[in-house]
This record gives sequence, structure tokens and C-alpha cells, in this order.
Amino acid sequence: MYNLVKENIIQKQLIKAGDNVLIGLSGGPDSVFLFHNLRKLKESLSFNLYASHINHMYRGKDAQHDEDFVRSLCEDYGVKLFVKRKNATDYAKELKVTEEEAGRILRYNFFRENLSEVGGGIIAVAHNLNDQAETVLQRILRGTGIDGLCAMSFVKDDLIRPMLNVQRSEIEKYLRENNFEFCIDITNTQAIYGRNKIRLNLIPYLEENFNPNIQNSLYRLSETMERDKKIIDKYVEIKFCEALVHADKNKIVLNLQKLKDMDEGEAGRVIRKSIEQLKGNTVNVEMKHIDYAIDFIKTGSTGKKINLSEGFTIEISYDNFIVNKIVENIPEFKYAIELDKPLFIKETGKTVLCSVKDISEVDIRESQSINLDFDHIKGNLTVRNRRTGDTIVPCGNTWNKKIKDIFIDLKIPAEERDSKLIIADDENILWLEDFRIHNSYKVSSSTKKILNITIGRSTNE
Amino acid sequence: MYNLVKENIIQKQLIKAGDNVLIGLSGGPDSVFLFHNLRKLKESLSFNLYASHINHMYRGKDAQHDEDFVRSLCEDYGVKLFVKRKNATDYAKELKVTEEEAGRILRYNFFRENLSEVGGGIIAVAHNLNDQAETVLQRILRGTGIDGLCAMSFVKDDLIRPMLNVQRSEIEKYLRENNFEFCIDITNTQAIYGRNKIRLNLIPYLEENFNPNIQNSLYRLSETMERDKKIIDKYVEIKFCEALVHADKNKIVLNLQKLKDMDEGEAGRVIRKSIEQLKGNTVNVEMKHIDYAIDFIKTGSTGKKINLSEGFTIEISYDNFIVNKIVENIPEFKYAIELDKPLFIKETGKTVLCSVKDISEVDIRESQSINLDFDHIKGNLTVRNRRTGDTIVPCGNTWNKKIKDIFIDLKIPAEERDSKLIIADDENILWLEDFRIHNSYKVSSSTKKILNITIGRSTNE
Repeated sequence: MYNLVKENIIQKQLIKAGDNVLIGLSGGPDSVFLFHNLRKLKESLSFNLYASHINHMYRGKDAQHDEDFVRSLCEDYGVKLFVKRKNATDYAKELKVTEEEAGRILRYNFFRENLSEVGGGIIAVAHNLNDQAETVLQRILRGTGIDGLCAMSFVKDDLIRPMLNVQRSEIEKYLRENNFEFCIDITNTQAIYGRNKIRLNLIPYLEENFNPNIQNSLYRLSETMERDKKIIDKYVEIKFCEALVHADKNKIVLNLQKLKDMDEGEAGRVIRKSIEQLKGNTVNVEMKHIDYAIDFIKTGSTGKKINLSEGFTIEISYDNFIVNKIVENIPEFKYAIELDKPLFIKETGKTVLCSVKDISEVDIRESQSINLDFDHIKGNLTVRNRRTGDTIVPCGNTWNKKIKDIFIDLKIPAEERDSKLIIADDENILWLEDFRIHNSYKVSSSTKKILNITIGRSTNE
Repeated sequence: MYNLVKENIIQKQLIKAGDNVLIGLSGGPDSVFLFHNLRKLKESLSFNLYASHINHMYRGKDAQHDEDFVRSLCEDYGVKLFVKRKNATDYAKELKVTEEEAGRILRYNFFRENLSEVGGGIIAVAHNLNDQAETVLQRILRGTGIDGLCAMSFVKDDLIRPMLNVQRSEIEKYLRENNFEFCIDITNTQAIYGRNKIRLNLIPYLEENFNPNIQNSLYRLSETMERDKKIIDKYVEIKFCEALVHADKNKIVLNLQKLKDMDEGEAGRVIRKSIEQLKGNTVNVEMKHIDYAIDFIKTGSTGKKINLSEGFTIEISYDNFIVNKIVENIPEFKYAIELDKPLFIKETGKTVLCSVKDISEVDIRESQSINLDFDHIKGNLTVRNRRTGDTIVPCGNTWNKKIKDIFIDLKIPAEERDSKLIIADDENILWLEDFRIHNSYKVSSSTKKILNITIGRSTNE
């Protein structure tokens, strides 16, 4: 088993020498299995291993037991551990999202925060073959296409899954044979959640009545789908480029005749790609929207324009088929910032996390977060979008400049300006997202304490 | 509903004016629904409608009732009906296949036989949206990839499915509202077969616990998969042509470096396509075989050759990667022919059906079957492959010619000769597959009775 994880890491190039690898360590069998595999491999593959544990404070004594277990495990093997205590149920209410989603935001924010402390790196999570099978089945049951069937992959952005092809039974066998202890998560044995219902009821029923190897079959399905998805992406990229007339931030102009010459499936995927390029993802783009667009390509005439869902219109203008992004009006917003507490801003989909650190703890050249001189801050911190008359003293200057003029100088389209975050204290704007920090708050040789600001985007992982 | 079937036929070009359309008419709600839709449409779309019914003699009185019902329905609307009585259980034992498979062979052989009587045409079958959903689910449970998820399509070869996107509930509603009668197949209500278990147990469970619209989701999945499959096929065709060095009946030579430059998924699909080209299909080509081949591309060296399953080897020879078909030795075989009884020849995968017909019933120019003068046949008919010393008097000649010399003249590769069927009576070889009939048995102006020979291939439909 140990060999399979090692093979995955090497063959799929999941970890490079010198990498900082942070493992999400709940204390359950999967993450403990991954922990032992990684701590064994870290010498020969020359990477640094860290661990993060979130005590969700769900089950009183149990949760404390798990935290203690993880602390002792990491101590035994000399692995630096980060621990956070936070109740996901409360956090879910705060963010107005599901508990599952809140847990996910909490986890990945904490993991990335830890990694930025050690100078950046990758996150290793302990999903196994059975998790993959359950995910595939869950997506089939909800309704999906090839993208959904690809399910989870061994590597995505800063996330690796080195044991995605390892079966749960093999994990348990390995832990037993090596006398490695682990914690049992009792919530996993209750069939109340959708996912647990799939694991505890549906899969055993399918194994008994239809196919004893259903989990392997589902895993294989996701594997072939991922291969096929790559082929589709390449082909669609070719067709998209062939049809492309013009692209900017708010519209994609395609040659209508080229679209008409394509198969329905090809044209549909080119439209989907156009939306993805404008939007950054294809969340909520449904097949019916693509079908409308295909139909419009066939039957629409010049001057026609229709709304596609999710803030897009499509129109035909002579020889062109145009996908337009409807510029959304972001309303005014303003939130109080509490230190060390990720704040999800629903208007922009971003998360802000501010912490105070000693100058010695922080590598200020590290570019993933913003560092300001904490001792210059007056009063309370808030995050908001622009207001008329906003000004800042840009870093390196001594006079106030209108935020509006900064936007104009930098040619920021009017429709994007309302989405830019501003962090202010009781007196000044400290920071304007993507562009400027206030000159008085910059880190200098006399700085002792740092205000560290991390901006995250909610992802699907 | 009527409109949806009509729309399918027109938009997907399922039927052209002048077509002979033969409907498989069991008498159940689905086929009766299709029958009424087609008989209403046949005038406006100018096609000819025929029906075929097989009385499987399963359920004594029930089966006779269904046959009577279908006869009366066709009579009422002036549709010519073909009826055959044959027990599929017995036939399955005969062919040594499952009852489902035997039923399928029986049905499609009979349908094609009927069509050839009316001068050729297409077969319309009554699969609906729920059948499609069940098929998709069944394939997922068994283990599948994109090809399996495409499931059934609106048109495949000579088969059309004009109501594939119509829901069972809509069918029942339409029949009720129009007071159209139909038969109930009680075997459909028993959860004993795998397929019925999916329909009667699994789907209701999934609808209740996971997704009330699961059937629509599965249908949509098959629809998007079919679109994506077309994209993959196109891309793979391009990559295959790029890598192709040489192709003949027994081997495909590909450029090794081109394969190495491809993604795993692309290379795998190119190998799969090579096998398909050599074999005619990819039945029994599993993902593990493709994985072997991908691994071999990466690690193999010149002179190496390995067996892939199903009669194929792969080898590396300098700059080339070669897929070879292992020429199989077909053993000698010989079977007695019974009239009107399809005979499955396992050595070649073909089915032979011989019938005797009056000259007036047969269009002898119709090329899908072979017609001989029945009254010249002496003794019993057999079908076999070649033996040393076989001779025939080729049509138009008066002297005997060695079968071996015919093969040589026509440049038939040695390895294919054992697979060619020969039909003989007690004295002569009447017919050599693909090439010759005996001069004495040809149909002439004095012919009264015809021996009609139909050769079928077992398909996946």
C-alpha cells in the first residue's frame, strides 16, 4: 500500500523536492494512513511535512480526544502541527451556507493560512477510492455530465490527493498490520446525511444486488472520464480559436457561420467555454442554457438578443454570434472585521482574513497576503466597497489621491470598480484591493507588529 | 406528445419520404403508442408502415391474447402485419445464450427478414426515456465509460427510436386520453430480472431518497455523453491519422514518437481505434488492456512484443508501434440447416437463416439475401467451412472449379478462408459466402420455389 502512494507521488509528480506539504489531519483512519505514508516518504523525497487539525467542537469529549491524539501523533514523529478550534455549525449559520460548505471554507482557509506562514506550499488530503466512488455516484444521482463524472483528481491547483486510488479496506488493513492507532468519527456511521446514506445504504445495496465491485467500477469511470475530458478540452480549444473573432472582459465574439458548421455538441461546448472565459467557471450553467444557445445559432437572425441565465446574453449581429456578460450592479456593502476570523463577503464571493503577527513571524516578501504596520491602525477595521469621495495616500506619496482617479489612471472598467475591496480603519483607507496601500501603514524598519490580510476566493474544492 | 414524436422524426431525419418503416409491435403500451403515432404520421410524411409481432409463447393464453390484439389493431388501421411464433426460452438453450439475447436475435432477424420481403427499410422500436434511464443506470452499475453512457441513440444503422425522449407517464396519459387499448406484460411487473429490479426497486428508491427527477437526469447524461462522444471521435480520428504509418487487414502501424507525445487518454483512444479498425468493434476491449498498451508505449523497447487480450498483440519495432491481429485458426465446423430456423454459428459469429418461398413472394434483385432455385436441391442442407478438394460450378460456367483456386483468384488472404461459409446439399456446394453460387441452382424463368438465405451478424442492439 505504502508503495502505491509512493508510486502515485512520483509518477503523477504530486510532490517536488523542497515542497512544503501540509496534511489535513482529522485523526480518522484515512488521514492517519496518509500521515504515516508521508512521514515515511519525506526523507527519501526531500519534502517538508506539516499538519493541520481543526477541532470542530462537535462532540465535546470526542473532539478533544481527537485533538489530543493528533497532537501526540505529530509530536511522536516531529511534525509541526497547526490547530484551530471552531464550531462549523455556528460558522454555517454565520455564513448562511450548509454546514458541509462552512466546514470546507474553514478547513481550506486555515490550511492556506498555515501554508502561507511557512512560505507557501501544497495541501495533501486523504480522499480514497471509496470517497471517489461515492462522489461519482452522488453526482450521477444529482444529475451531471462528463465534468461531474471526472469527480476528484490527484492534483488540482494547490491540492494533492496521493491516495485517491487506495481502497478503504486496504487502508484499514495497513493500519491494523502496523498497529497504527486512529480515531473513529461516529458521525460517519450515521446514515443521516446524503453522503453517508450513499455510503451506508445505497452502495451496500448495489454491491449485493447488482455488482460486488461497483466501487471499483465507479472509480474506473471517473478515471476514463478524466482522460476523455482532456481530449474534449483540447478539441474545444481548437474549435474555439477557429471561431473567435474578438474577446474582452465582457464579451466574446464568435463567427456565426463557423458555429453553424459545427456539430451541436461542439457548438455547445464552444459557447460553454466562452461563458467560462468571461465568468471564470461554469457553475450554474445548465444544459438547457446551452440548448437555448444551440437553437439560437440555428434559428436566430441579426439584431436578436436573448437572456441566457446567470448574467449572460447572447446576440446575433450580422456574421457574428456574441456572448455578453451582463455587468452586475454590486450594491454598497460594509462589514466589521474581527481579527483571526475569516469573513465571507457574499457580494463579491471573496473571503477576508486579518491577523496580527509579530514581525519575526512573517516573510513580508511573500506575495500571497498583504502586510501593514499594525501599530498605526486607529480604531476598528472594516471592509467595504468604494464610496463617493474616497481617498488614499498611495504608498510612496504624501498627498491624498481620489480612489476614482486611481481607477481612471489604471483604466479599470467602471463596472468592475464596485467589486474592489477596501479595508479602512476609523480614519483612513488602508488598502485598495489589487492596487494600493496607504503610505502611512506600510511596513518599515520600525514596524513591530504586522496586520496580515489574506484574500481568498470560495472554490469548489 | 404526438408532436414530440413528429418533431423527433423531422428534426433528427429518422424517416424519409418513401421509406418502408417496420414497427416492432408487442402490444404493450410503448409499442402501441408508437404505432398510433406512426400510423397518424404516415400520410403526411409519406412513408409505408408495416408491423412485426413475435409471439414468444411464454404465457400460454396471455401470449395468444397479445397476438390477437395486435392482429386486430393492424387490421383496424390497414397495416400489414408479420407474425412469428417462437419460444425464446427454448431458442436460448439452442444458441447457448441468455433468454434476453435469444429474444433479441430472434426479433431482429425476423424484423430484417420482413423488411427484405418488402424491399428493405428501417425498423422502428419503442424505447422511451425511462428505458434509456434504466439502460444508463444498468451500464453504470456494471461498469462503463463514455461509450456505454451514450446508451441508446435515436438512430443506429437501420434502427430508429422515435420516442426515446418520451416519458412513460406521458405515454400512459396519451393512451388513456385517447382511449387506446394495449396489453399488459406481466413479466414486466416481476422484479426477478436485473432490468426489472432496476425499474421496480432501485429507481423508486433513488427517486424517494436522492432525486425525484433521477430518470430525467440519467436521460440528460446520456444525451450530453452522446454529444461529447462525437467530439472525442473526431479528435481521435485526427490524432489517429497523424500517427498512422501503415494499415492493412491484420495490422496497424503507428509512429511511436507521435504516440509518446500524446496524453495518455489520447494515446489510449488511438490504440482503441486501431483495434476497432482491425476487429470491427471494441467488444471485450477493457480499460486494463488499453492501460497495458499505454504503459508499453512509455516503457517498451524495440523488438518487444506482448499479447493484448482478444487476439491482438502490440509490438515496438524501431520508430513504430504495431497493433497486430492474431490470425485465429477457425476449426472445421459443419451444421445441419433446418428451414425457417436461424442457426447461430459460434465459430464465425454469424447467423444463417434459410427459408423456402414462392417465387412471387420474393424480389430477387434485393441484395440483402441470397436466392436459389429450391427445386434443384437434393437431400439435406448443411452449412460448414471449406474442406480440401471442395469444388463448385460458378454461376455462368459449366465446369467445376476448386474453391481454393477461387480464393487465390480473388486474393482472399489465407487466414480468412476458414471463416467463409459454404452451404451444401447432399451432392453439391450451392453457395460460397461473398463470392459464388452454383450454376445449377441459380434462379431462372422456370424457378417456382426459392431457397432464400439470409446471413446475419450478431450485434449489440
